[in-house]
Amino acid sequence: MRTERTQVAIVGAGPAGLLLSHLLHRRGIASVVLESRSREYVEQRVRAGVLEQGTVDTLVEAGVGERLRREGLPHHGIELRYGGRGRRIAFEKLVPGRRITVYGQQEVVKDLIAARLADGGPIRFEVSGVAVHDLDSAAPSVTYTGPDGEPVRLECDVIAGCDGFHGVTRPSIPDGVLTVYEREYPFAWLGVLARVRPSAEELIYAQTERGFALHSMRSPEVSRFYLQVAPDENLADWPDERIWEELRARLETVPGFTLATGPVIEKGVTPMRSFVVEPMQYGRLYLAGDAAHIVPPTGAKGLNLAVADVRLLTEALVSWFSTGSAALLEGYSAACLKRVWRAQHFSWWMTTLLHTFDSDDAYGRRLQLAHLDYVTTSEAAATTLAENYVGLPYESDPHD
Amino acid sequence: MRTERTQVAIVGAGPAGLLLSHLLHRRGIASVVLESRSREYVEQRVRAGVLEQGTVDTLVEAGVGERLRREGLPHHGIELRYGGRGRRIAFEKLVPGRRITVYGQQEVVKDLIAARLADGGPIRFEVSGVAVHDLDSAAPSVTYTGPDGEPVRLECDVIAGCDGFHGVTRPSIPDGVLTVYEREYPFAWLGVLARVRPSAEELIYAQTERGFALHSMRSPEVSRFYLQVAPDENLADWPDERIWEELRARLETVPGFTLATGPVIEKGVTPMRSFVVEPMQYGRLYLAGDAAHIVPPTGAKGLNLAVADVRLLTEALVSWFSTGSAALLEGYSAACLKRVWRAQHFSWWMTTLLHTFDSDDAYGRRLQLAHLDYVTTSEAAATTLAENYVGLPYESDPHD
Repeated sequence: MRTERTQVAIVGAGPAGLLLSHLLHRRGIASVVLESRSREYVEQRVRAGVLEQGTVDTLVEAGVGERLRREGLPHHGIELRYGGRGRRIAFEKLVPGRRITVYGQQEVVKDLIAARLADGGPIRFEVSGVAVHDLDSAAPSVTYTGPDGEPVRLECDVIAGCDGFHGVTRPSIPDGVLTVYEREYPFAWLGVLARVRPSAEELIYAQTERGFALHSMRSPEVSRFYLQVAPDENLADWPDERIWEELRARLETVPGFTLATGPVIEKGVTPMRSFVVEPMQYGRLYLAGDAAHIVPPTGAKGLNLAVADVRLLTEALVSWFSTGSAALLEGYSAACLKRVWRAQHFSWWMTTLLHTFDSDDAYGRRLQLAHLDYVTTSEAAATTLAENYVGLPYESDPHD
Repeated sequence: MRTERTQVAIVGAGPAGLLLSHLLHRRGIASVVLESRSREYVEQRVRAGVLEQGTVDTLVEAGVGERLRREGLPHHGIELRYGGRGRRIAFEKLVPGRRITVYGQQEVVKDLIAARLADGGPIRFEVSGVAVHDLDSAAPSVTYTGPDGEPVRLECDVIAGCDGFHGVTRPSIPDGVLTVYEREYPFAWLGVLARVRPSAEELIYAQTERGFALHSMRSPEVSRFYLQVAPDENLADWPDERIWEELRARLETVPGFTLATGPVIEKGVTPMRSFVVEPMQYGRLYLAGDAAHIVPPTGAKGLNLAVADVRLLTEALVSWFSTGSAALLEGYSAACLKRVWRAQHFSWWMTTLLHTFDSDDAYGRRLQLAHLDYVTTSEAAATTLAENYVGLPYESDPHD
């Protein structure tokens, strides 16, 4: 078995792992990124597309925001559509100076991979059999098999688990260490990517008796849609014609709005889950992003939370490597979890505000309409949506 | 059977019926109030005690606010206590110029009865067998038996159903007319009145693992407390010592706070229910207050909603009697229901924010703490609580 060595072994080349590797490099800390998929696969994987102000600032400050600034679509509001009316949540008025940027997650991934490779940073794609070892020692390591079949032992000081909800790092933590907080929802999202100009300039979150629908976009030529469907929905039951028919039924509910249609490029079913493990660390293993927490996508928080985790982990590692102080590393989980739980609540709140839960519960249905009326007419209530959606400042500390 | 005649027959001498009778009298419209209980009973019945700004303004403008202004306790904030900390929702900062006034509902009732009797307004206490007739005709009536056993037919133009959730007027509406929206909660409130000075100047809403507790007051010498208990709680299981012990356990959770104790004057179990019927009218019968809608008491909205209903009903009746136009009467239910559903949502929201639902749902428990952290640290979120608690302006219209 070949042995190599680095300071930080990063499992997973999603946005969390790649950004961590890039930020560490800029601070003089070496890392190796291990990824089971191919470069092409991770660069094409369609995921989130709404970046908070702070996420954009982080990428720009890190020197990987050039294309994002050029191609990203700045948005200053979203529309809530329900009961035959559309009402705008106006960020420019409610949270002046803050906005979101629509830019696909896979574009962020492409930019980060390009930057890492340009800096010579090792990313090992298509590795298999990744396993982490000796987490509770001062000499942890990761073993894997390279694409050429060669077994490798990667020795390191710290392991970063950035391998998502289904990754190998979290399950490597011994039983009894982690507390799991979890909620499942009685529905999923059918996501659709279509080559057609967006039918509106801003995102439309539509609440209807038929279920939730979201009108979004990736570029001036590519639209992104989501439909609330059953949790076990079979994609085969959704030919393109049915998708457009259902999107029209849920979105063409206000006068003057017509849905533009075009070729479907991709479609898939996304489960809806809320999930948190505490703590987000064990020994020399630190979890970041989806490896530690999942939110339903309604609040567009998943990618943004991963970036916030990585910011904190970078600072903690820089402090530890440069001064030997473990204070920030020891406080990493607690620091992350403040923002994580705020996003958990917001994502749950947006999800319950907009989805159809049980059409037989007439009281709940009226409560939801009363809530939508309030959120769209009270400046204070609209501000709670806006300030969470654009992203609360990193320095905010809701726990004193 | 003796026959008498009035313009508006009002069933129920609670705050809704009495205020309606008083406001109509000031506008030159005659009414008779029918009440099955004795004057002493309704004047002593302990109920709500938090008056919105608009409720106080209504009573003062109607000339029945003199003692309220003298003895009512103005409050400019409330405390949310949870997780070992107490955080204040500061009305004076969040909703400048608006406040609540602590003044027992039975004091409002006393003031209104005194005013009605001083004006010679007929209130028939201790009547029995109240029944309403010919609601869908132009000549409705109410029959009842006086305390002396005499049967009476009260002919009128309009009947106001102000007889509460368990009253006779709502069930007199034919089947199929009303739609019922309802939710029950898996807990009740044990209410306690004690002769002891309040332990804090403001109301304290305490969320604990043991359940919710509320510290309130009625005067500088009388405290009011509530404890979340099981929905079928047996009052006999709550001797005074147990009440104080449980209140201490739920309220003495922050440094420096000691609960003052004293003789218990009264205790009782209040069920928690959300309930609305639509429409709030049928023919010549108009429902107001608890006869049409119930909220859990957490948001202190029940009495205040009744006052808002009565304001609208008064204007509608004045318009009809003076000009013959039925437009406001026909729109009465729709006009009331806007505020009713806002209060329904707020009351549900405050209830779920503060009560313990299912201690086994670890995710829900953390969500609740994240929500409490947010409400007490975000100015926008705190404002949503404050603006609903002090009462949204009457002119607000959340439905366009």
